[in-house]
Amino acid sequence: MNVPLTPLRCIRYAEEQFPQNTAVVCGDQRFTYKQFADRAARLGGALRALGVEPGDRVAFLSTNCHRLLEAYFGVLEASAVLLPLNVRLAAAELAYILNDSKARILFFERQFLPLVEALRLAVPTVRSFILLDAPPQTNWMESQNYDGFLADAHPLRRDVMKVDENSLAELFYTSGTSANPKGVMLTHRNIYLHALDSAFGLQISQEPVELHTIPLFHANGWGKAHTITLAGGTHVMIHQFIPSEVLQLIERERVEGCCLVPTMAIALVNWPDRHKYNLSSLRRVMIGGAASNPVLVREVERELGCQCISGYGLTETSPVLTVSTVKAGIEADEAERQARQSMAGYAIPGVEIRVVDEDGNDVPADGESVGEVVARGDVVMEGYWRQPAESERVMRGGWFHTGDLAVMDTDCYIVIVDRAKDIIVSGGENVSSLEVEKVITTHPGVYEVAVIAVPHDKWGEVPKACVVLKPGQTVTEIELIDLCRSCLARYKCPHYVEFLDILPKTGTGKILKRELRKTREREHQPTRTA
Amino acid sequence: MNVPLTPLRCIRYAEEQFPQNTAVVCGDQRFTYKQFADRAARLGGALRALGVEPGDRVAFLSTNCHRLLEAYFGVLEASAVLLPLNVRLAAAELAYILNDSKARILFFERQFLPLVEALRLAVPTVRSFILLDAPPQTNWMESQNYDGFLADAHPLRRDVMKVDENSLAELFYTSGTSANPKGVMLTHRNIYLHALDSAFGLQISQEPVELHTIPLFHANGWGKAHTITLAGGTHVMIHQFIPSEVLQLIERERVEGCCLVPTMAIALVNWPDRHKYNLSSLRRVMIGGAASNPVLVREVERELGCQCISGYGLTETSPVLTVSTVKAGIEADEAERQARQSMAGYAIPGVEIRVVDEDGNDVPADGESVGEVVARGDVVMEGYWRQPAESERVMRGGWFHTGDLAVMDTDCYIVIVDRAKDIIVSGGENVSSLEVEKVITTHPGVYEVAVIAVPHDKWGEVPKACVVLKPGQTVTEIELIDLCRSCLARYKCPHYVEFLDILPKTGTGKILKRELRKTREREHQPTRTA
Repeated sequence: MNVPLTPLRCIRYAEEQFPQNTAVVCGDQRFTYKQFADRAARLGGALRALGVEPGDRVAFLSTNCHRLLEAYFGVLEASAVLLPLNVRLAAAELAYILNDSKARILFFERQFLPLVEALRLAVPTVRSFILLDAPPQTNWMESQNYDGFLADAHPLRRDVMKVDENSLAELFYTSGTSANPKGVMLTHRNIYLHALDSAFGLQISQEPVELHTIPLFHANGWGKAHTITLAGGTHVMIHQFIPSEVLQLIERERVEGCCLVPTMAIALVNWPDRHKYNLSSLRRVMIGGAASNPVLVREVERELGCQCISGYGLTETSPVLTVSTVKAGIEADEAERQARQSMAGYAIPGVEIRVVDEDGNDVPADGESVGEVVARGDVVMEGYWRQPAESERVMRGGWFHTGDLAVMDTDCYIVIVDRAKDIIVSGGENVSSLEVEKVITTHPGVYEVAVIAVPHDKWGEVPKACVVLKPGQTVTEIELIDLCRSCLARYKCPHYVEFLDILPKTGTGKILKRELRKTREREHQPTRTA
Repeated sequence: MNVPLTPLRCIRYAEEQFPQNTAVVCGDQRFTYKQFADRAARLGGALRALGVEPGDRVAFLSTNCHRLLEAYFGVLEASAVLLPLNVRLAAAELAYILNDSKARILFFERQFLPLVEALRLAVPTVRSFILLDAPPQTNWMESQNYDGFLADAHPLRRDVMKVDENSLAELFYTSGTSANPKGVMLTHRNIYLHALDSAFGLQISQEPVELHTIPLFHANGWGKAHTITLAGGTHVMIHQFIPSEVLQLIERERVEGCCLVPTMAIALVNWPDRHKYNLSSLRRVMIGGAASNPVLVREVERELGCQCISGYGLTETSPVLTVSTVKAGIEADEAERQARQSMAGYAIPGVEIRVVDEDGNDVPADGESVGEVVARGDVVMEGYWRQPAESERVMRGGWFHTGDLAVMDTDCYIVIVDRAKDIIVSGGENVSSLEVEKVITTHPGVYEVAVIAVPHDKWGEVPKACVVLKPGQTVTEIELIDLCRSCLARYKCPHYVEFLDILPKTGTGKILKRELRKTREREHQPTRTA
């Protein structure tokens, strides 16, 4: 018997088995799985009543909120495709995505009304604009907001036996740290198997309590929307990452796990009042989205009192590919364990990872040879939306080419050394910006750092460190350069250190090196220093 | 990207990620995953060299042994279908299965040579007979045994990308407690998804140590052959269930989990020397294959010092359908918890369970209304081998009809009340033999019991209890009947108690009620007693 693989089975299962469990905590609101599933079904019915047809794209411009989580299932109940939008994008970028995807409906939070006003005439395929969180404010919108929309609807539960598991379920535009956003097509099968694969790989317990620190518009919410639902667990939502609110919610809801990008983890472990909160429920923090490092793992374990591991993945892979838990056969003291837990880790079940050279041959698994990470597995996307040539290019040879450079060791753990485009080529030598950042991060005065390439007339490019210091700290340029020289080959050391108040970031907290490079390319006149 | 779902991915993953982990412990032999996967690949190559073609059935007549575990993967490397045979069957029964399946090769242990001698001329499709564990003894066999066969072979690793996930991987004949054996067809997809579903549902940890108490020729080895492999864990094999050896192995190998049928659990908790062994590594024992009961759960938890849960499934469902862990929302004291853990439990992820009346409508989930268990999910077989009418009958309405009668409570836990054919109909009232057995089991002198129907001229049928006492115990017929009368409605109480030294069982330890009924039907003259 073949039962189609679809994320709708996650919510069916939770509603059947755990109807009275708390499904969602969002501000002052709490919903059981019975209520949550009913709301998702009503969203499905409402979309159908609005004329949404199978395969239509339904866009959401929303911070992390129960409504966006409902959309993860409700849009699929209507046989439509969920298109979550990054709330940090500008109107022109959003318009590009809405037009590229030919989205039919746009749900949005009131705070984004000015954005939507600015783009609405530029997105002719969008027929309905619906406010998520307040009554309509302008006369060009539907007369209802989301809650009214649901209240009037008939619940629609799609027959899972009739789902085509290879049909499109979600369309996620990549965060665009490197190029124009591309629509990543994730199928029902991708997402359901990701839930099962990552549940096993990340050892998700039954009925866990998870804090959604990672925006659900980013990389499929790291799959947690589905995994936690399948486990009958509680989703604790935060609209915005404010350390004091995060710590308060962990205490109040007895949160057991969360995912963090490094900048979030850095913010939490440096938050002055962190010890005032009872964080004893926390079992595990997972760091991903950008490279972790041993110092950060140690600080999270010490300051938050829980295990800290890392993982690696991409929007194109649903997203989780690897996890850095320590295999039983590996003997490691505490420092070695934390160092290993800061790696990207090894492939979860259902996923194969290789590190290959330009000809597609495996580089030696010696922890030193650099190659590109390629992946194969249940979680790999169907392709890019209406970009067959680009899809074929990244899928060449039957493996998805991530564009990330890494080394693999004999235990099959990978360490990402750089995005292919962030690598610094200095005098013919490759310099991993991440390797230099890891050294600078060990300085106690440093809050965060990004190392980028700047032009140089002799070496072509040289590294430059953009550094944010912790409050009240004084650190000099020469001090950080000396620190690097004590640990790294000379050619890897930054030629310049610039101190900034803040680093430019994507909506999901990734540092925008592209931005840093762009503005600094002009400033740096070629010179012969060092 | 669609990567075919096949159990071969379990061994590929383990070989890649855990090459040096101990995969198998079998007597004095130990194999790492590198060795285990190499042997499986050699088996694949050897079969191909022997002329085995894709889809051919390859039969194994073997107790639990590393070779049978290798066959779980090696036969699939050759694109063939694994057919494990129950070693307790008679020659005529085995011949029936070999002919029905048109098996091409029969591997067998030396101890079964007389059986094979007796059937070999009756199974014309079998072209090769290969000894598993010793050099050939007779002149009609191939000149090699299994190990020689492997040593000479070229490893063959099937390209998983070319597997048809809906093709047949295993053919298991049902144990035949009720009718002629039928060949249950399990596909690659069934088995791989069962590994993932049950890993999550049973909360399998990374790299666990599992004792294979359940024969691998029974109900797909309860799926553990695949689940434990995917987790990179250690398979500890026992050829035969001898309590002292089981306890010794748990101590020596630091076993963390095992599955037991109730008769095995009863034997372990009553074994006089059980306290001489260090069983502290045991985390969880799972009881299945026949109904558990609260007394047994309590005794296992007390005597073996680990959690004891139950599960339910059938050969037709790969096999696990349910598990009886206690949901977080259920408040229970210790006795209630143990009672709940003795239930069949609730559906694992990937599975839907309903309890229905004869028209296919759900009976009330009130813990009292009896109906037939029907199931839908990834784990449900493709159908019965060459029995389209019977396949269609059990799959009617898109749900697999188990033939088991159960009640479901408001928390979606089911309790099996009887096989449809084991129910006793006395004076128009249905009597669950399991319910009566549970009462008799509470008597401290009782080792095990089977309640069956015997003919009665007034009531049609009445219950009779066939009881085995613990060594040195004296219990009278009237004492047990009085015990039942103190707990049960009068019509449910046995009219007769027969004391036996042993109960007839299948090769897998299930009590053969059919046998008990057959011999007693003649003995019991209709009478007007009671």
